[in-house]
Amino acid sequence: MNYRDWVRGELEGLSMAHGFRYTPREEIEGRHARLRAGMEKKGMDAFLVVQKMDFYYLSGTTQDGLLFVPLDGKPLLMVKREAERAREESPLDDIVGMKSVRDLPSMIQEHWSGLPKTLGMELDVLPVNEYFRYRSLFPGVKFMDASPVIKDIRKIKSPFEIDLMKAAGDIGKRVYNEARGFLKQGMTEIEFAGLMEASAKKHGHEGLIRVRSLNYEAYTWHVLSGLSGGIVSQSDSPMGGLGLSPAFPVGASLKVMEAHEPILVDFGTCYHGYQADETRMFSIGPMKEKFIHAFNACREIHDAVLAGTRPGADCEALFRMTLGLAGKLGYSDSYLGPPGLQTRFIGHGIGLELNEFPFIAQGQVYPLEEGMTFAVEPKIVFPGEGSVGIENTVLVTKDGCEILTPVEQEIFEV
Amino acid sequence: MNYRDWVRGELEGLSMAHGFRYTPREEIEGRHARLRAGMEKKGMDAFLVVQKMDFYYLSGTTQDGLLFVPLDGKPLLMVKREAERAREESPLDDIVGMKSVRDLPSMIQEHWSGLPKTLGMELDVLPVNEYFRYRSLFPGVKFMDASPVIKDIRKIKSPFEIDLMKAAGDIGKRVYNEARGFLKQGMTEIEFAGLMEASAKKHGHEGLIRVRSLNYEAYTWHVLSGLSGGIVSQSDSPMGGLGLSPAFPVGASLKVMEAHEPILVDFGTCYHGYQADETRMFSIGPMKEKFIHAFNACREIHDAVLAGTRPGADCEALFRMTLGLAGKLGYSDSYLGPPGLQTRFIGHGIGLELNEFPFIAQGQVYPLEEGMTFAVEPKIVFPGEGSVGIENTVLVTKDGCEILTPVEQEIFEV
Repeated sequence: MNYRDWVRGELEGLSMAHGFRYTPREEIEGRHARLRAGMEKKGMDAFLVVQKMDFYYLSGTTQDGLLFVPLDGKPLLMVKREAERAREESPLDDIVGMKSVRDLPSMIQEHWSGLPKTLGMELDVLPVNEYFRYRSLFPGVKFMDASPVIKDIRKIKSPFEIDLMKAAGDIGKRVYNEARGFLKQGMTEIEFAGLMEASAKKHGHEGLIRVRSLNYEAYTWHVLSGLSGGIVSQSDSPMGGLGLSPAFPVGASLKVMEAHEPILVDFGTCYHGYQADETRMFSIGPMKEKFIHAFNACREIHDAVLAGTRPGADCEALFRMTLGLAGKLGYSDSYLGPPGLQTRFIGHGIGLELNEFPFIAQGQVYPLEEGMTFAVEPKIVFPGEGSVGIENTVLVTKDGCEILTPVEQEIFEV
Repeated sequence: MNYRDWVRGELEGLSMAHGFRYTPREEIEGRHARLRAGMEKKGMDAFLVVQKMDFYYLSGTTQDGLLFVPLDGKPLLMVKREAERAREESPLDDIVGMKSVRDLPSMIQEHWSGLPKTLGMELDVLPVNEYFRYRSLFPGVKFMDASPVIKDIRKIKSPFEIDLMKAAGDIGKRVYNEARGFLKQGMTEIEFAGLMEASAKKHGHEGLIRVRSLNYEAYTWHVLSGLSGGIVSQSDSPMGGLGLSPAFPVGASLKVMEAHEPILVDFGTCYHGYQADETRMFSIGPMKEKFIHAFNACREIHDAVLAGTRPGADCEALFRMTLGLAGKLGYSDSYLGPPGLQTRFIGHGIGLELNEFPFIAQGQVYPLEEGMTFAVEPKIVFPGEGSVGIENTVLVTKDGCEILTPVEQEIFEV
């Protein structure tokens, strides 16, 4: 059987029958319109999109290729593997196969009848060797950093994107509720985390949690029980956990979970690339009063952030408000980490990646805008004892906010 | 409780009690000796190590920081978060906290009594913006690409590393054997994959499969049943599968697995950063004769590669041998993918990352060496029907090879 003929006849039906949602043409066109406005302000003639999530955002596919977006004229999607599938998934009109990056200048020349004078690329993630290779292909062209432009437009989510994030949040709700059934005394942290991951995958969670960084690795198996929760590690997080080895010194470990320990579960889900992030507390039998008290403080701080969330609210001011509240509640020395190692953020933008705008953090002096989505996660850490926290993913609405992670907020006591 | 005091007293004991193995001092010293020999050949005064797996290989820790390795003199490990933990995990002598990358020149100056004239960095992965930031910190210093040097030394594995890879292989064996117990007709591919992942995590698998690339994302849930196995996608692999969405169009999908379909399971495991990669066939009831026949051809090709594996064997020649053998067995048009989309490799080096040297592939004209490890994976694809294959991770020994993935090689029929 000829593969290409088969794919043309079967792939769309197969995809639709198995839960795929393609990005609509109007959605892609809206994103490109906003992108071009941003490019124009920067004096960027064209944007050569390399990074997978930017590529998906602007094309609707993650097949392996490059996307050329001129300020005026139609975008050109060049696909190394597999062009036939990209044609099924992307609503863009001009989709061609590409054998080698060497052919790029001639392909652009042919499509656009010229070459750009200024070319944007994602210089925040593009590796140096690849950058110099692109420069050698386009001598005389001025290269610019396109990452501020694409990050800026990606920070506001459309109704289509919010739908996908809600679907991710619904997966999370099912996982947390099922987890109540399989958490058992004597289980290791990583065994429990693996069962949560299996539950999430069964419901369509895509497994990867993406972050825009060379070295930062996101993961879902962040289950920290008792003193694991009091260990700081490589990540810019109030607590990292013990982890499994020096190669992965964060998250769930082979430690056995005991009764009455606080068990902090920070679990992200991903649906069609869109993520929801949430943290809940579990315990086997009741937790000690000290942890319940601290958990209630986290909820109070969380609720105060949500009460202050609306278009125009300043991100740094929201963060500072939580410092004051944590102090008033008696947790100055344990809020967001142990003294000397406290993190300086309480929320991070989320969508296709975990580190999008906005950041509810020190130094982030800009207003929230309608359509932004972020995860807010107050946490309190007691070294040698454990940690507690709560986290939800929220959408900034016209006059407030909406929670996208509809899991009950009480402690999951089994 | 003071966090740093607590960590100093407790972390090593906790880590050892929960399965951690620290990299021995002699192991790190051996790696550095080989690194310095490579640096000297290139005229590199110093190497500033950024990338997480290179950093782990040369320090024994993955805490967040930078490692300065001068050609002469002692290495300096500078840790942003968390230095106390890095001191527990790394046998290096000089480990200091670092607040900001801005302090780098003064920290190096103080440690080494000078600045290098030529400085290597991993330009194959370092993002452009970070590169220019480092260049601005070291005006007048000549920057070089250190990635060929570090890749070259990492391609030969020590007995310590091989032990860790064997432990990863043992996890794989337990997972495949348990999988026989939970594969059921009517289950979706992703549900089965999630259960395998949970089984692996319970046995200490670290969850992430690492690859050295901006956009390539490795994953373990590569379960392709029936016609899913005949779908090509973004990855340079004979078949990608349907996947879960256009954002993750590879690997297991929500397709239900039926009796008598070939079910290809390509599952990697990771222990202390070291990976083992293997593929086995499953079926619910017997597979059709056509697939059994093709599977036996894959085994014959696999065995022929192993028979030809020894120090001095040329990588491209091994690959070409398999093309001839596949042709003789009647699979020219389905070996390594459908016509026009066939991949040009049969094996990839593996260790801390999935794409290390050697590559048993077209254009890879160099000899195998003792201590190299690679995964060999002949696969045969029938569009619209399914695919079959087998994969093992092997070590090149003094006069042949040794399999590091001790799972039985027969079809797992349930």
